Amino acid sequence: MRTRLIFYDIGEDNLRVKLSNKLESLGFIRIQYSVFCGSHANGQWKLCQKEIEEVLNGEIQEKDKVGVLPLNPVELRNMLYFGDAPDFKTIFNEELVIWI
Amino acid sequence: MRTRLIFYDIGEDNLRVKLSNKLESLGFIRIQYSVFCGSHANGQWKLCQKEIEEVLNGEIQEKDKVGVLPLNPVELRNMLYFGDAPDFKTIFNEELVIWI
Repeated sequence: MRTRLIFYDIGEDNLRVKLSNKLESLGFIRIQYSVFCGSHANGQWKLCQKEIEEVLNGEIQEKDKVGVLPLNPVELRNMLYFGDAPDFKTIFNEELVIWI
Repeated sequence: MRTRLIFYDIGEDNLRVKLSNKLESLGFIRIQYSVFCGSHANGQWKLCQKEIEEVLNGEIQEKDKVGVLPLNPVELRNMLYFGDAPDFKTIFNEELVIWI
């Protein structure tokens, strides 16, 4: 299992909504408006990456940015958070998606 | 030196601008609209944290969120990026702020 943080700036509403829906359907949890976090096994992640690329390909604009950052869970647990902290317990401990 | 990613959702324009100006003045580099990244020694970071808290204290609203995530540079270099990638060389290699 590897935890990843995904954060994006996407100007066009349709693409932004498409990407956030896709990330949710892949088991990523929204921790901020344009920041998602999720833990996936390597094989699962490869499928996720393919699906994310399919959403972006041909639609991502010059100024858009999407970062996918692999994290060490220890570091995620050491995160400082001002405001309501996300439910990291869920991010780390639950099987969120049934992978067929 | 420790690299940190700072990302925020702040509803109020004034506070959002105040925080982004503060992060820039502390040597963090904007990598997305509301995502900054920077490397600081421990002592420097303690000063940064104090200054960030001073900006937020009393002004942060219930729905606002600010995450400060310590990173392993190896992981940051393994980041996948769609769109123009940030200048990570600058983030890692240059002394950006003179600390008095």
